[in-house]
Amino acid sequence: MEETTTTQILGILVLVLLLAKVCGSIAKRLGQPSVLGELLAGVILGVSWLNIVDPHVSVLHFLSELGVMILLFEIGLETDLKQLLKVGGSSFVVACVGVALPFMLGYLVCSWLGYPSLVSIVAGATLTATSVGITARVLSDLNRLSAPESQIILGAAVIDDIIGLVILAVIKKLTSGEEVTSLLVVQTTASAFGFLLLTLTLGSLLLPPVVNWIERSRFAGTPTLMAMICVMGLAWAADGAGSAMIIGAFAAGLLLRKTEAAHAIEHGVAQLGQFFVPIFFVCVGASVDVSVLNPFNPSNLATLRIGGLLILAAIVGKFLCGYSLFWFKGRKDVIGIGMIPRGEVGLIFAQSGLDTQVFDTGLFSAATIMVMVTTFVAPPLLRLRFPPLPDEGPHEQQGIESLVN
Amino acid sequence: MEETTTTQILGILVLVLLLAKVCGSIAKRLGQPSVLGELLAGVILGVSWLNIVDPHVSVLHFLSELGVMILLFEIGLETDLKQLLKVGGSSFVVACVGVALPFMLGYLVCSWLGYPSLVSIVAGATLTATSVGITARVLSDLNRLSAPESQIILGAAVIDDIIGLVILAVIKKLTSGEEVTSLLVVQTTASAFGFLLLTLTLGSLLLPPVVNWIERSRFAGTPTLMAMICVMGLAWAADGAGSAMIIGAFAAGLLLRKTEAAHAIEHGVAQLGQFFVPIFFVCVGASVDVSVLNPFNPSNLATLRIGGLLILAAIVGKFLCGYSLFWFKGRKDVIGIGMIPRGEVGLIFAQSGLDTQVFDTGLFSAATIMVMVTTFVAPPLLRLRFPPLPDEGPHEQQGIESLVN
Repeated sequence: MEETTTTQILGILVLVLLLAKVCGSIAKRLGQPSVLGELLAGVILGVSWLNIVDPHVSVLHFLSELGVMILLFEIGLETDLKQLLKVGGSSFVVACVGVALPFMLGYLVCSWLGYPSLVSIVAGATLTATSVGITARVLSDLNRLSAPESQIILGAAVIDDIIGLVILAVIKKLTSGEEVTSLLVVQTTASAFGFLLLTLTLGSLLLPPVVNWIERSRFAGTPTLMAMICVMGLAWAADGAGSAMIIGAFAAGLLLRKTEAAHAIEHGVAQLGQFFVPIFFVCVGASVDVSVLNPFNPSNLATLRIGGLLILAAIVGKFLCGYSLFWFKGRKDVIGIGMIPRGEVGLIFAQSGLDTQVFDTGLFSAATIMVMVTTFVAPPLLRLRFPPLPDEGPHEQQGIESLVN
Repeated sequence: MEETTTTQILGILVLVLLLAKVCGSIAKRLGQPSVLGELLAGVILGVSWLNIVDPHVSVLHFLSELGVMILLFEIGLETDLKQLLKVGGSSFVVACVGVALPFMLGYLVCSWLGYPSLVSIVAGATLTATSVGITARVLSDLNRLSAPESQIILGAAVIDDIIGLVILAVIKKLTSGEEVTSLLVVQTTASAFGFLLLTLTLGSLLLPPVVNWIERSRFAGTPTLMAMICVMGLAWAADGAGSAMIIGAFAAGLLLRKTEAAHAIEHGVAQLGQFFVPIFFVCVGASVDVSVLNPFNPSNLATLRIGGLLILAAIVGKFLCGYSLFWFKGRKDVIGIGMIPRGEVGLIFAQSGLDTQVFDTGLFSAATIMVMVTTFVAPPLLRLRFPPLPDEGPHEQQGIESLVN
């Protein structure tokens, strides 16, 4: 499958974009966030059913990764850094509790089931990281990105992605049998958080004047290109610094928001997003195998039992973390629900558990079930507790759409 | 190099887009088409010098192919099919003469140098196909796309791409030692031309009403996505029908021009073009090795002699084909010059000659030199004989740019 030709990929992409659009529109018509439809399109095209989309093919993998970067960039462009910092303390608490609770619950569940300590630790870790991509997209679909609850969720999801990186680094050491020193933990944490702080500080000073200068100079007319260079450049730097690529892309959005070209960039990158972003969600959907959910297959029963317990740990752990903000006057339940989807990050953990042979295929499948259910349950739940706001402003076509629906 | 990670590709793409923009701007400032700068950026980043960009890496290869498809789509969107058909006869004559003359001259040169007949045929074939991508981009850079000369060149370049496909199919049979029947030639020709005719006929009837219906329905708000699905779908179909992918993309542009969404599509796809198109030209530049041009390396002398003769055949052959339109009152020299660049199509022929061991590395390098020189000589020559028109209309920023330059 790796030797895929350009023609084959073209055919696959046509199916991906077409089915994503159709399923997304149906989801929207049923009052659901359209991302739910795109994920289902992935399930149809992926390993579960038609087996047309293999997210491991290098070209698809890259397009999908660029898709989530562009999504996070767009979210960053719509996010006011000052407002994000204002709720920074709350986000931090939600992130920490939202990592600790599911981790402990997952560890306890697996210990209780008789798994050895290392396996239980890795299983617990799989429950920790919220998928900022799915959460942000759902909040955007619901037109709720600027609500304080959304800002807290977004900040917390970014922070717990960084915590997730640290945990992943520690797990890798653990599974390779190496000793985990506190120095390693401190170093990894410092470089992962340090990148974001350094980028935002330096970038706030340097990027706006440079971009404004370019906009006014004879290099004008290419805000989209300029934005893509910033997105990919910061994503590349983030990865090099030991942080995550999507964190770099998010930072690029936060920074470019303050430039004169922000409006042109927002419009231009949105066009790229129409092409790239659905590829990401379809690939996430394509990589989960729903056949392990079939209860009529007796060999699935043990997996389903572990999976069910992990789902419980995953949902309860994240849901309760919203209530750790006892001083917050807004919707604590919305924050908890917003943190539930695990998506691609959970899959990365599960895959790494399988690769290092810490997980057997049963536990791997159970982790996959957990990712699947939390991913698919969060959009409708969030919609139920946090109903969409009507569109305002110049988005005429979307305005018509919301009247039709 | 095939095992390139997402991070590496991000870094490469940042360099590609940045250098393409800088070199393109410099070329423009020197009064040259900006595509010349992008090709040079490729030479700097490619096998000739820094060796950072390897166009054979699957992700880069795909992005670059999608880039030339988007370019041809944009050109198709700006092309009036009726006007193109009006000059269709002239285009056809130019294409046929422009294939026959360079082929014969190349064959004679190689026979005279003592190469066997099969080798001379393949070498002649390498000279036949004009790069419609480079030609169209130069004419667009010069703001001359709607001139009758440009329409004739465009039509001829599309037709000779199709003839090139037929020749390639014949050559493949020849080099594999199989018998070439006239049935094979007729079949290949029919399927290659048939696809274009069928697509344009059926598409003219079906596509505009479907697209207009989608635009007015609740699926609205995604003209860019819809256009990309059409581009990739028709490119995929073209390849399957034995035609070229860029022909399918060009046909998509011709067809969508007549829809109500044409303006929104043009604007949206232009944003994708800013990202994808430079990748194509940088990859073309990156795949030529300018070190074979060094005359101080004695081992290059024989190659340079053959290369020089091939260049002569390539330029004279295409230049004269403009004069085959003896009834045409416009600029015959412009048409001849517009047909000169060989670009990626010539490289495909040369590569296939090398792969089938018909070419030795000397002849392969000579063919590469021919491609390189015709590619790099055409933009400034065309600019000299066909000076750019000033921009008009709402493109304010470009207007300012042309005043600055």
